[in-house]
Amino acid sequence: MSRPLSGAERLARLRLARSDTVGPVTFRELLQHFPNAVEALEALPSLAARGGRKSALRIPSRADAEREIAATEALGARLIVYGEPDFPLRLAAVDPPPPVISVLGAPHLAERKAVAIVGSRNASAAGTKLAATIARDLGQAGFTIVSGLARGIDAAAHRASLDTGTIGVLAGGLDIVYPEENRALQTQIAERGALISEMPPGTRPQARHFPRRNRLISGLSLAVVVVEAAMRSGSLITARFALEQGRDVFAVPGSPLDPRARGSNSLIKDGAALVENAEDVIAALQQTPMRPFTEPDATHYGRASGTPFEPDAAMRQRILSALGPTPTAVDDIVRQTGASIPAIRMVLLELDLAGRLHRDPGDRVSLLPEE
Amino acid sequence: MSRPLSGAERLARLRLARSDTVGPVTFRELLQHFPNAVEALEALPSLAARGGRKSALRIPSRADAEREIAATEALGARLIVYGEPDFPLRLAAVDPPPPVISVLGAPHLAERKAVAIVGSRNASAAGTKLAATIARDLGQAGFTIVSGLARGIDAAAHRASLDTGTIGVLAGGLDIVYPEENRALQTQIAERGALISEMPPGTRPQARHFPRRNRLISGLSLAVVVVEAAMRSGSLITARFALEQGRDVFAVPGSPLDPRARGSNSLIKDGAALVENAEDVIAALQQTPMRPFTEPDATHYGRASGTPFEPDAAMRQRILSALGPTPTAVDDIVRQTGASIPAIRMVLLELDLAGRLHRDPGDRVSLLPEE
Repeated sequence: MSRPLSGAERLARLRLARSDTVGPVTFRELLQHFPNAVEALEALPSLAARGGRKSALRIPSRADAEREIAATEALGARLIVYGEPDFPLRLAAVDPPPPVISVLGAPHLAERKAVAIVGSRNASAAGTKLAATIARDLGQAGFTIVSGLARGIDAAAHRASLDTGTIGVLAGGLDIVYPEENRALQTQIAERGALISEMPPGTRPQARHFPRRNRLISGLSLAVVVVEAAMRSGSLITARFALEQGRDVFAVPGSPLDPRARGSNSLIKDGAALVENAEDVIAALQQTPMRPFTEPDATHYGRASGTPFEPDAAMRQRILSALGPTPTAVDDIVRQTGASIPAIRMVLLELDLAGRLHRDPGDRVSLLPEE
Repeated sequence: MSRPLSGAERLARLRLARSDTVGPVTFRELLQHFPNAVEALEALPSLAARGGRKSALRIPSRADAEREIAATEALGARLIVYGEPDFPLRLAAVDPPPPVISVLGAPHLAERKAVAIVGSRNASAAGTKLAATIARDLGQAGFTIVSGLARGIDAAAHRASLDTGTIGVLAGGLDIVYPEENRALQTQIAERGALISEMPPGTRPQARHFPRRNRLISGLSLAVVVVEAAMRSGSLITARFALEQGRDVFAVPGSPLDPRARGSNSLIKDGAALVENAEDVIAALQQTPMRPFTEPDATHYGRASGTPFEPDAAMRQRILSALGPTPTAVDDIVRQTGASIPAIRMVLLELDLAGRLHRDPGDRVSLLPEE
């Protein structure tokens, strides 16, 4: 997408992204079903109503959206919606892409080849040293280092790459420091690197924000290096996103007697390349064929024309009865109902906006119990 | 090979195996070219002469061989030549098989499913503990543990599997304790497990004996687990033999900052499965299809009949001129000379017995400078 978006379309995309129940998947679906965000935004209340929504859907006003843009710019940052020319290419290629990001600092860092380094907050001295060494050496080899500005491994990776280029991805707004002990580091990254967030200014990070931050960390990167990670840690979530996004996952091993190595060792068992230093990372990256980063459905996405397909009441009922509390693959709904995929996707979108749908991994969906 | 060997054949095989310049490859070649070891033994001096040997080939006498058998039996052990019914099946399947082994203790341990655990002599406390835990748990799961009776990892693995079944493979003779600090352990293994050696009683282990011991360790096992191993260590040699023999290689990872983990981490980089405990070993073994352990060329090996093929002088000269100090693949010699493989193999065997041939990995050979 090289044409700049119109001001109205930009604002409509931001308002869509900030509407109730609209996450990245719903945002993508809306842009696929409607010719543009302006029309999608107009249709939003009726879609939600057809899906069975009882309460009104909260949609931010034009003024709300303008206020968010102004607040972002007041921080010295820039708000970029999906589809704008300066939206980072690798993030645009993530499926679904983040609808809106804001960037403080040097945006070109996101366009260089980049590697994420993530790991435990309670890192060992050895782990911190390894993260720093790998970050420094990759930085000197021309890689941007991406991480999550957490304590431990993340902070060590950022510090070691301040001179060469580092991107800190925040779970909350750009103006919120978290954790407090990384205040100085966050300021240094804003000045010398780049901070990126999906959330509006003022957002305090909550548990549910961290997976979205992790998805950005992997999405911005060619590969994720996990240095020390316990089982069921955020670093493993980042690694999972990386695999879903077609990124490489590398892990630094540790002794089986060290609980901080459990997660990284388990990644290697599951097929991640074992890396011990920056040279290993570079060698492993060279073994992966270069992926052209293109947007999914680039010919179609955001370019739907005419009136979106609307299934009739009978068809809508048939699709609805194929759904239940157990996750069902969309392909199975096709087989069971005989409905077309656009029809099914439209009904799912309506249910989603009504807050009645849960999207499960592997293009599966389930119906939430009615309020 | 289920028929017992005749006493004469058994003695001839032992004498062949103990002759000058006869290693496992030459032994195999001799058994492939001659109907039996008795005839091969008779032909040995003339083969060596045709190969250009100047000094006499030292061939042990019948009395020498009988003395070795008696000395082995005096230790309470049994000497088993390749082809005898109680030669361990997995060792017989190694190509080339060890020509002769002696076994002290419970020979049935070599027929159970077995896993080798090997590693650093200067093991860390953590490494020793891991080796012991894995050995104990695999032992309790019914596996024989095989190792090399070295200090460190080997000793820990043996100690932890004394109750369940352990095989110590010695580089020297069965009656030689090495290292001295493992004297009590070696005695315990003789009493409760099994000791196996390729060397005659009285042989003190020398550097050149260790690779042959390592080849036996991997050959006796379904898989080799490397616990802590520096680069260029004997454990990596065992791992390489394991791969050549079609055995699995597993490695326990460690921190990249620990030099003792370099070798095991590098094995994982090269494709070895990362294991942290016995369950991982068992799971990884289950992913490998069961290999039927059969002797190579079972229909032919040791069953050649009639007079072996003898190339004429012109052909012999042509084959000889295709050889040089640079390792050459046997296939290339076929292409270059037009000679048949049996003819080439016979000339190589002659050169080998004359001490003029060096056998390189990958069925390549080179000519040694004349004495």
